[in-house]
Parts: sequence; C-alpha cells; structure tokens
Amino acid sequence: MDTRLKKQLDFILEIDKEKNIFRQTHLSGGGRNENDAEHAWHMAVMAYLLKEYANEPVDIARVMIMCLIHDVVEIDAGDTYAYDDEGEKTKKAREDAAKERIYSLLPEDQKQELQEIFEEFEENKTAEARFVRAMDNLQPLLLNDSNNGGDWKAHQVTAKQIYGRHIRTKAGSERLYELSDGLIRKNIENGNIKTEL
Amino acid sequence: MDTRLKKQLDFILEIDKEKNIFRQTHLSGGGRNENDAEHAWHMAVMAYLLKEYANEPVDIARVMIMCLIHDVVEIDAGDTYAYDDEGEKTKKAREDAAKERIYSLLPEDQKQELQEIFEEFEENKTAEARFVRAMDNLQPLLLNDSNNGGDWKAHQVTAKQIYGRHIRTKAGSERLYELSDGLIRKNIENGNIKTEL
Repeated sequence: MDTRLKKQLDFILEIDKEKNIFRQTHLSGGGRNENDAEHAWHMAVMAYLLKEYANEPVDIARVMIMCLIHDVVEIDAGDTYAYDDEGEKTKKAREDAAKERIYSLLPEDQKQELQEIFEEFEENKTAEARFVRAMDNLQPLLLNDSNNGGDWKAHQVTAKQIYGRHIRTKAGSERLYELSDGLIRKNIENGNIKTEL
Repeated sequence: MDTRLKKQLDFILEIDKEKNIFRQTHLSGGGRNENDAEHAWHMAVMAYLLKEYANEPVDIARVMIMCLIHDVVEIDAGDTYAYDDEGEKTKKAREDAAKERIYSLLPEDQKQELQEIFEEFEENKTAEARFVRAMDNLQPLLLNDSNNGGDWKAHQVTAKQIYGRHIRTKAGSERLYELSDGLIRKNIENGNIKTEL
C-alpha cells in the first residue's frame, strides 16, 4: 500500500478512539453520557439544518468538517467540562500537544489543512467558526433541556456560568441565541438552574 | 417559538435516538458494538479525507450530509446486518415507513430535501451516492480488520458474502476497492473469513 493512503488509514483508525471519550452531557431521555463522536455527528447535522439562522452566509462543507473534527484533540487531552475552571487552565497546553501528535499521523498537506480548520474554530475568527461554536453550545443545551436540566443540577451550574458560555452563540447566530436565552430562562424559572451569581 | 424552528428542533431531538441503534460492528481494540451515530460520523470524516480516491469528482458537502443521515431510518427500522438475508427481505418496507415518519417532523422543504438525499443514496445513482456507499462498506471493514476479523468470525461470514457487498465499493472508488480486496484476501489467508462458497 502506498505511504499516503497508509497514513490516512492510520489517522482514520486513531480517531475511532473518540467514541470512548465521554462528556458530561447525557442523551435525551435521561440516558447514558454522550461521547465526542456522537456529539460531533449531532452538531454537523444540526449545522446543515439550521444554517439559515447563521448571522453571515457560511460554507456548509467547511462548517460540517469543523464540527466533525473539533474534538479530535480530546482523544489525548480528555473532555474538559464547560464549567470546570481548574481544567480550563491547562486545556490549551493539553490540546496543543494532542493537535500535534494526532494530526501528524496524516500526510503533511492534510495535517496542515485539518490543523488550520481546528485553529480557525479555536480562534473563532470566521463566520464558519462562530456558527460551529453556536452548534457546540446549542447541542448540549437541547439535550439538557430535554432532560429537565439534569446535568446543570448535577453540577450545580449557575445562570452566570451558563450565560458566560452561551453569550458566544450570539456571534454565530442571533436567532439561535434568542432561542437559547428562552430555554435558559425557562430552566431558571423551573429551578433547574441556580440564579445566585 | 415559530413553527419552522420548532419543527427543526423536534427532528434534531428525535435523531438523538440514533445513538442507541447498535450495529454488529465492534469498535477497534475489540470494544463494544458501534452505534449508528458513531458510524455516520466516522464515514463523514473518512469521506472528507479520502475524496481524492473517488472515481468521479464529488460535491463533498452533499457526500458528508448523505453520510450523516443515511441511517436515520434505522431509529424505527432497526439495523439490518449486512449478511442477514431474512432481514433484507423486509428492510425496504420498514425503512420506507421510517423515512416517512421521521422526516415528516421537519418543515416541508427540508423533509423533501433530506428524503431526496436518502433516496439518492439508496438508488446509488450519483457519484456522491456511490462514494458514500464505498464509505459505508470500508468503515466497518477497517474496524473489523483491526479486530482480527472478530465480527466475520462471530457471524461465520463467507468470502462470497463479503465480496457480494464490497464489489459495490468499486463503483465509488476503484482505488478503495483495491484496498478492500487486499484486506479481504489477508483475512481469508489468516482464516478469519471462510472460503467455502
């Protein structure tokens, strides 16, 4: 087998491990924890269906591949929960090392391409990146809302923390931020989200 | 909330169930059974990375969304194992009913769009559909090969059955069929695949 294809297959087999990286979010219906591969799949389908709500026109192919690979680094770096302030401090260093090791399995041109897509997402600097960020926020919000806020209650997350994250949805989609805000308010009223600041 | 967005969200929450539809294929490293959402995610990333091997140029956005939604019908219809001849007889009727129920959750224009993408895949009539079919064959082949053919051995699948499926990869990608053929031959030599016809 030629070297190029061999490297592509090595990467493809490596990312199978993403199916074993579990998140704090639970599946709807109060099921088990969701893993990164499922989360990425769900985000990419959502992006395709909700693209009409992006603030700016987006290249949907770039949005979808960005959704699909945005958590590959967690194979080495692990999932850092959205409201884990301690984990947040070391997240960048852990993910940078992972980005180098995992994408280096690919042929050089594809390594560069996928690293650039990941960096674009991290730096939030394009319409595509901002819309993917909106999906990354909205997807667990929808699941958690469907589960009567179970994950927020388990982690005693406050409204301030939740808004601190979801405010970034606004840059990708005003309409989906409005939706998110409505769902967060409902869960505050229901007592699923703590109001103390 | 407006009706259009409400319908889109209903569909998005409904397809969360795909994460609980388990396939016969096991994760690499001899792990648990893989589910449909993980399989679709893996196929879409593979399609993006391997598109240079498609026999004809493909619209990669259409290929990715086709990968991502091709198994949504299995939420109702269940997974039919590739070598289950009895299940195959009722598969079309089960999947047609599912296609109608599940996609009807969406606004009419998106219902039609996604049903058309699914039908295009089923009918194998475009370069995109043939390439997605190649991914649908290659993805479990790579996992099974990495597991020393565990799934073929468990189901006592024969070379004839395997070639009957994988021959369709050729229409999407001659190069990836050549790869598949090499992997199948290796597993026949290793005794993981039975040679009796």
